[in-house]
Amino acid sequence: MATTAREPHVVIVGGGFGGLNAAKALRDAPVRVTLIDRTNHHLFQPLLYQVATASLSPADIAVPIRSVLSRQRNVRVLLGEVTGVDLAGRRVSVDGDPLDYDFLILAVGATNNYFGHEEWARFAPALKNLDEALTIRERMLLAFEAAEREEDPAARRRLLTFVVIGGGATGVEMAGAFAELARYILARDFRSLDPSLSRVLLVEIGARILQAFPESLSASAEEQLTSLGVEVIKGRRFRRIDEQGVEFEDGERLRAATVIWAAGVRGTPLAHALGVELDRVGRVKVGPDCSLPGHPNVFAIGDMAMLRDRNGVDVPGLSPAAIQEGRFVARCILGDLEGRPRGQFAYLDKGTMATIGRSRAIAKVGRLQMSGTLAWLAWLAVHVLFLIGFRNRFTVMFAWMWQYITFKRGARLITGHTSPVLLAAPAPSLRRPSAASPAAEAVSSGP
Amino acid sequence: MATTAREPHVVIVGGGFGGLNAAKALRDAPVRVTLIDRTNHHLFQPLLYQVATASLSPADIAVPIRSVLSRQRNVRVLLGEVTGVDLAGRRVSVDGDPLDYDFLILAVGATNNYFGHEEWARFAPALKNLDEALTIRERMLLAFEAAEREEDPAARRRLLTFVVIGGGATGVEMAGAFAELARYILARDFRSLDPSLSRVLLVEIGARILQAFPESLSASAEEQLTSLGVEVIKGRRFRRIDEQGVEFEDGERLRAATVIWAAGVRGTPLAHALGVELDRVGRVKVGPDCSLPGHPNVFAIGDMAMLRDRNGVDVPGLSPAAIQEGRFVARCILGDLEGRPRGQFAYLDKGTMATIGRSRAIAKVGRLQMSGTLAWLAWLAVHVLFLIGFRNRFTVMFAWMWQYITFKRGARLITGHTSPVLLAAPAPSLRRPSAASPAAEAVSSGP
Repeated sequence: MATTAREPHVVIVGGGFGGLNAAKALRDAPVRVTLIDRTNHHLFQPLLYQVATASLSPADIAVPIRSVLSRQRNVRVLLGEVTGVDLAGRRVSVDGDPLDYDFLILAVGATNNYFGHEEWARFAPALKNLDEALTIRERMLLAFEAAEREEDPAARRRLLTFVVIGGGATGVEMAGAFAELARYILARDFRSLDPSLSRVLLVEIGARILQAFPESLSASAEEQLTSLGVEVIKGRRFRRIDEQGVEFEDGERLRAATVIWAAGVRGTPLAHALGVELDRVGRVKVGPDCSLPGHPNVFAIGDMAMLRDRNGVDVPGLSPAAIQEGRFVARCILGDLEGRPRGQFAYLDKGTMATIGRSRAIAKVGRLQMSGTLAWLAWLAVHVLFLIGFRNRFTVMFAWMWQYITFKRGARLITGHTSPVLLAAPAPSLRRPSAASPAAEAVSSGP
Repeated sequence: MATTAREPHVVIVGGGFGGLNAAKALRDAPVRVTLIDRTNHHLFQPLLYQVATASLSPADIAVPIRSVLSRQRNVRVLLGEVTGVDLAGRRVSVDGDPLDYDFLILAVGATNNYFGHEEWARFAPALKNLDEALTIRERMLLAFEAAEREEDPAARRRLLTFVVIGGGATGVEMAGAFAELARYILARDFRSLDPSLSRVLLVEIGARILQAFPESLSASAEEQLTSLGVEVIKGRRFRRIDEQGVEFEDGERLRAATVIWAAGVRGTPLAHALGVELDRVGRVKVGPDCSLPGHPNVFAIGDMAMLRDRNGVDVPGLSPAAIQEGRFVARCILGDLEGRPRGQFAYLDKGTMATIGRSRAIAKVGRLQMSGTLAWLAWLAVHVLFLIGFRNRFTVMFAWMWQYITFKRGARLITGHTSPVLLAAPAPSLRRPSAASPAAEAVSSGP
């Protein structure tokens, strides 16, 4: 390495938006940087739902962390899992091996929150990483395939019913994408299936969807979803999720083969292992300089941190916030080394947007509010530009243009890396329990 | 459907080159066609090795069978596995459900042949489908990652040693691609790894590689491989493959974390289940009209068939042959319906080629023999044009241009759908047995 062991060692845990941008911002700093991640790739999470709905391939929205940082001489990238932090000893444990640090930047994000019902995860997968996205894509495609072979109307309806739980941005995007898939793909490729049989439901426990947005935009988003054929259910609680679907508190059953969980996130086990104060969803409470109280050399940023900024704003769990925090803590470290005082983080809200489908979206930039085609074009531009790496930007743009023209999906592949729990589950009303097995067969392969 | 139950029912098993082209050729025939495949996609197998070596994404070389046939009204596509054929009863069993046929076209391809050593499959995955390709990609990338963290030189060398068994086209292509990966990717992205530590070996039991080609081209291919840094081992037998690597008959051990099996194929269980005569590798012996002896309404085509054509040529197991056979049997069926006599199949050899790497390949077209850049450009053109669907053709071409310019690989993603047997295997010489676990960690995810 171009640096010497003399230089302070900055350990960054997590190669997401926060960690990656912190590493980049330390490019010219007189430090040794070690970036550790459980996967080998940086993921453009805002587009993960498009992998789950077969619009994009994993490689379109993910890049190996190594290649992003390959030209930065003072960074070392490790594939591994940080299982613990010894704040007193200034040491992290990477799969059991100790690694000393002078500065530590924790940016491990958040994990899915099933609110104490982890048993629901089997039946309602969430959408935080590529594997989960591929799992969802596979279940959805297998549901269509099984429906094509199913003769019992009730079983068929169950296979063609998609429930998305959680009316946040991810939930809205998933529901919209499912509705488009059902409408266009079903109509063309599945002879014996009537698209009108397919139902897509978005279940929001709260009073309205997209609560991070002004009411008027929430209302517009709901209209746009409805116009796509999505049934929006608000203010209803459910007590149970199983292989049959969702059961509401009033006992009503929603029979669905595909249920997606987009109802919230919480702190990771690592956050809990720190032994510092967390908020009620397990996020680390950090000071205005993103450092842990009592540990100025340890920072927590991104979705894992609960931060009230200089202007009293609670920083939201969005990629722009993580990026800004990553760059901010890099400046703090540089300042410490040069004897400059640290500032306080101030979140710059560049606006937020959510997409619903083709020419359907909402956006809020400052006081400006947009919805429909204009918001969608804005969303398209922003997300393509954000994508890391020219190649991805190019192919994603092309894939989208292609779909816009043809209504086709590029990545509708079933590759057997998961077993379709829901489809394989014996369903009383299935006249032929074996009806689901072709699906199961189709995904069993490999040496 | 546009057809009536009166029309003869043609059942096609397998959506590869043979089955798909048979279905297309029946487009205007007065028949009902049902195409059954275990997966939902048609795979462009000649480029599968590029998925395994992280050049292309699965979606670049695979298309949903449904969308290929979506405009053909007389075809129904089923996802399912044909587990048996009742030749007397003219009935196939699809996951236990009976399906009657008037004509049957069997095109299920071949399966990997471990010559009675199925236990080797765990340690030496083969390359017949997308799942296996993703498995190989993952093992290779995890081997690099583990090597970056490994401090013991011997263990590191094992992690950076790649052995390809079988000197046919697939083996040569895999070995060449590994060598390029090691040379260019390693050099750029892995700080502490010295590319010269990496070894790629191609093991051929026979006297020369690419025996389907003239000796001069075999020799040229071997030179080109060597110039890429591949060690070609010929005429040596091995007695054992395990988590440590390969052991030759003379007891010499080749310690390698990644061993790929490309040493041959054999007939599928379905071929054996037919109860008809097979050749020694389990291929169905068919008549010159591709039909089963005694069963003129049942055809076997592609890799699963052993066919000597009208000119006494033993038809090779190549995609062009499968395509020609698929179209031929479609004409036979049409002829039967119109009372025309069947002809005899004649294989048209349009030439064969094998690629080794960037500007390295060999090709034989009639008497014309090419090698090097010219052969590579020919290979490139042919394979891009062959790819089904404009979108794929376009993105593949772009991906290749991009790599040619930048030496980067587009699809270097580790998504956890398999467990890296070889890396997790305890190796005596590993000073820290846990050294491999980060890899294992990295692939455990999902809800």
